[in-house]
Amino acid sequence: MRQISLKAALDRAACADDFAVLEIARPACPDGGILVRNVHLSLDPYIGPRLRGRHMGEAPPAPMLDPVPGAVVGQVAESRSPGIVEGDWIHSMEGGWQEYSAIAAGAFRKLDPAAAPLAAHAGVLGMPGLTAWAGITQLAKVTDGDTVLVDAAAGPVGGTAGQIARLKGAARVVGIAGGPQKCRLVCETYGFDACIDYRSDGWKDRLKEALPDGASVFFENVSAEMAMTALSVSRPYVRGVLCGLTGASPSAGPAPHALNAGLLIGKRAQLSGLVVYDFYPHWDVFAEEASGWIRSGKLRFCEDRAAGLESAPALFEKLMRGENVGKAVITVSKEAP
Amino acid sequence: MRQISLKAALDRAACADDFAVLEIARPACPDGGILVRNVHLSLDPYIGPRLRGRHMGEAPPAPMLDPVPGAVVGQVAESRSPGIVEGDWIHSMEGGWQEYSAIAAGAFRKLDPAAAPLAAHAGVLGMPGLTAWAGITQLAKVTDGDTVLVDAAAGPVGGTAGQIARLKGAARVVGIAGGPQKCRLVCETYGFDACIDYRSDGWKDRLKEALPDGASVFFENVSAEMAMTALSVSRPYVRGVLCGLTGASPSAGPAPHALNAGLLIGKRAQLSGLVVYDFYPHWDVFAEEASGWIRSGKLRFCEDRAAGLESAPALFEKLMRGENVGKAVITVSKEAP
Repeated sequence: MRQISLKAALDRAACADDFAVLEIARPACPDGGILVRNVHLSLDPYIGPRLRGRHMGEAPPAPMLDPVPGAVVGQVAESRSPGIVEGDWIHSMEGGWQEYSAIAAGAFRKLDPAAAPLAAHAGVLGMPGLTAWAGITQLAKVTDGDTVLVDAAAGPVGGTAGQIARLKGAARVVGIAGGPQKCRLVCETYGFDACIDYRSDGWKDRLKEALPDGASVFFENVSAEMAMTALSVSRPYVRGVLCGLTGASPSAGPAPHALNAGLLIGKRAQLSGLVVYDFYPHWDVFAEEASGWIRSGKLRFCEDRAAGLESAPALFEKLMRGENVGKAVITVSKEAP
Repeated sequence: MRQISLKAALDRAACADDFAVLEIARPACPDGGILVRNVHLSLDPYIGPRLRGRHMGEAPPAPMLDPVPGAVVGQVAESRSPGIVEGDWIHSMEGGWQEYSAIAAGAFRKLDPAAAPLAAHAGVLGMPGLTAWAGITQLAKVTDGDTVLVDAAAGPVGGTAGQIARLKGAARVVGIAGGPQKCRLVCETYGFDACIDYRSDGWKDRLKEALPDGASVFFENVSAEMAMTALSVSRPYVRGVLCGLTGASPSAGPAPHALNAGLLIGKRAQLSGLVVYDFYPHWDVFAEEASGWIRSGKLRFCEDRAAGLESAPALFEKLMRGENVGKAVITVSKEAP
């Protein structure tokens, strides 16, 4: 089978040429676990720092040996796990960039393939969706009348966060995204009330105009600097979720992570750090609620999908450059084998 | 009567020579308000930035015209306020460094002189105490089993915060203070389990040892840098209260206010900005609860008291240098006239 691995250790953002396609033996089914035929592979921003060993203290994958990490939606090819049989569908954070994965007990969730399109489990029902749901419903606890500001709003986390905020009663949802195409997606498909293009002149003034009464909640997905911009257009007592620092350049020092404590105090901000790992126990509850929203058309998503494992490096480079629109998903193999 | 005013506008930390004692006419009793004979005057760190117009956007007091701002405990000399009569005791944030103050309706609270020593209303029952109570009970919501870390622990805010944390069920209370004398006060008088002297070598290692299971709550009273130290010895999900930045040098730029967003996220920190103004409506509730603790000996306090209005500049300089031990209070005139 094929696996994609790093050619060498990295100390900068990855580009497509940094990856090698290896031919290796298909792994055996582990004791108590499963062997999975990977169908959809999720490409996510955290993989960037993860490859450099800069994500949650995890060691980077060994070059020319380990697969690049990534979540997968796949079908069970062999099971030594009670209650799981060949043909079942699963989601796992431990799949990796390869055609088949050996997945240990406890490292996967069984899916209902009828609940939603299978690829949705890589995005809106996968880790990005769970992140959005956790921030909006469990940390910010968005409720009736809130005004919610979300950045990276065209991305799968931001776009889902704004929509869930609306579903939970937010009166106004405003996004920030890069470029007119992304802003159109945010307003027209995700139904935000406004979306401000941070690449346009005078965008901070327009952001202020789009929030005449200030934000009562912000969901921060880009950088500490952007969080400070969000705070500056927020009401006192704003609830802020610090979710990711995807926009922080890997080469820059600590500055992009700096929050101004004086401004936080002045705004009486209530900040929460969000690490989605903590919410894995809630995944089934979230996925059931969100599957219903998808089926009824209330929660929309958009994919940037490419076919074939070998297309992963190029799509990943596009993701790292912020050029993709919609959730980056690689369809590794056909849904029906 | 005498009033103390700034000699000239300030753009640095104040020292004793920056103040002038003026002889001015005693003010008239305002319509609907009161004229107060000031008895105890509270000197607090916020006055430092306040004199430079760097506190909550408030304009600095006019040199040679306005009194230096400060909270007072005083006795009503004349009343045009319903329900208040000559001889009543009040607390006001609007008193200032002067012998008599004209105080508008709504800008004072009536005190029960039997509830606690009168000077206590300038400290442990005054704004410093309310700040401590608000942070511990209303924001961090300290409860049974918490481990609470407090810095500036010898000060009236920190010392009171640690004691209230204990009264609310904290299992372990650890302080940070500057110098062995302050650390002894924190442990022996305020009853903290440990107090680490941040001026001693290897203090961060000893702080870690004093918190073997990490802090579940920290009350930050000094600087963003100290908040990051607190965070580094905290458990995941720590609730942090950002209360003041008294330790940040007025000449330094934004750096001392910088919080590291990556560390906040990694610790899943729950941060709250605290501005004590917001809790003024709770003052009577707090003061009643805390007066009971004082009477029963469960809440202790320590004063650095000087007599005579003219002693305010020197004590204020001592406060600005962090050299005072206990709440800085000027007794302007005798309790019994």
